[in-house]
Amino acid sequence: MRKIEHIGIAVHDLENSNELFSKLFGQPAYKTEEVESEGVKTSFFMCGPNKIELLEATNENSPIAKFLEKKGEGIHHIAFDVENIYTEIERLKNEGFTVLNEIPKKGADNKLVAFLHPKSTNGVLIELCQENTCL
Amino acid sequence: MRKIEHIGIAVHDLENSNELFSKLFGQPAYKTEEVESEGVKTSFFMCGPNKIELLEATNENSPIAKFLEKKGEGIHHIAFDVENIYTEIERLKNEGFTVLNEIPKKGADNKLVAFLHPKSTNGVLIELCQENTCL
Repeated sequence: MRKIEHIGIAVHDLENSNELFSKLFGQPAYKTEEVESEGVKTSFFMCGPNKIELLEATNENSPIAKFLEKKGEGIHHIAFDVENIYTEIERLKNEGFTVLNEIPKKGADNKLVAFLHPKSTNGVLIELCQENTCL
Repeated sequence: MRKIEHIGIAVHDLENSNELFSKLFGQPAYKTEEVESEGVKTSFFMCGPNKIELLEATNENSPIAKFLEKKGEGIHHIAFDVENIYTEIERLKNEGFTVLNEIPKKGADNKLVAFLHPKSTNGVLIELCQENTCL
């Protein structure tokens, strides 16, 4: 775990939230991206070495739609930057964490990602992510 | 906002969670600290340029006790490192955010801190923090 890569925040309306977070950071989102497989539209803000990812659901089966229904807007996950996602998944499994994606999948922002189940991490949804140099 | 200074995570039992997060990061907490005025015991983990702060309530009136009762364990707040907390409070008030501490207060880890109300920030409790060079 080399740093917090980003924090994911679930929002109802990406356009409104982009405006709000632009005011917060004093600069606009540097990109927006739709990840069809996850049913989300995302936008990214830079904050020094870290990013904030806003997530809006694009359909009612999206994990973000379910999160919003259950908990409302707020922090959805923390993503940690890892050097090698495969060895990190193995290490964390051996330490007793529940890894939801034993084979990493393609995430937003050109990343390979895998999630840890919040039941094994004090209620925090943790994403491991590695820059995907092959995409 | 220069970086994510730390993410605060509310936990029921700091000792158990210290063990869990030591496994997650592959290294122990670098310090623990009690902040009596806030009714919390905290521990801090390094993650590159960022930190993770675990928070356990030390009495039932602590904001952390109330958070745990309402929402259970999980992410409590994001703290952003700012160069000058006074000018940042003024800037954010002018942008329409609700600042809970117009005069910054002393927080854990030798910081001056101020919070933004989550109602004005898409459900996210945001802390501004500045290294307190006078402590």
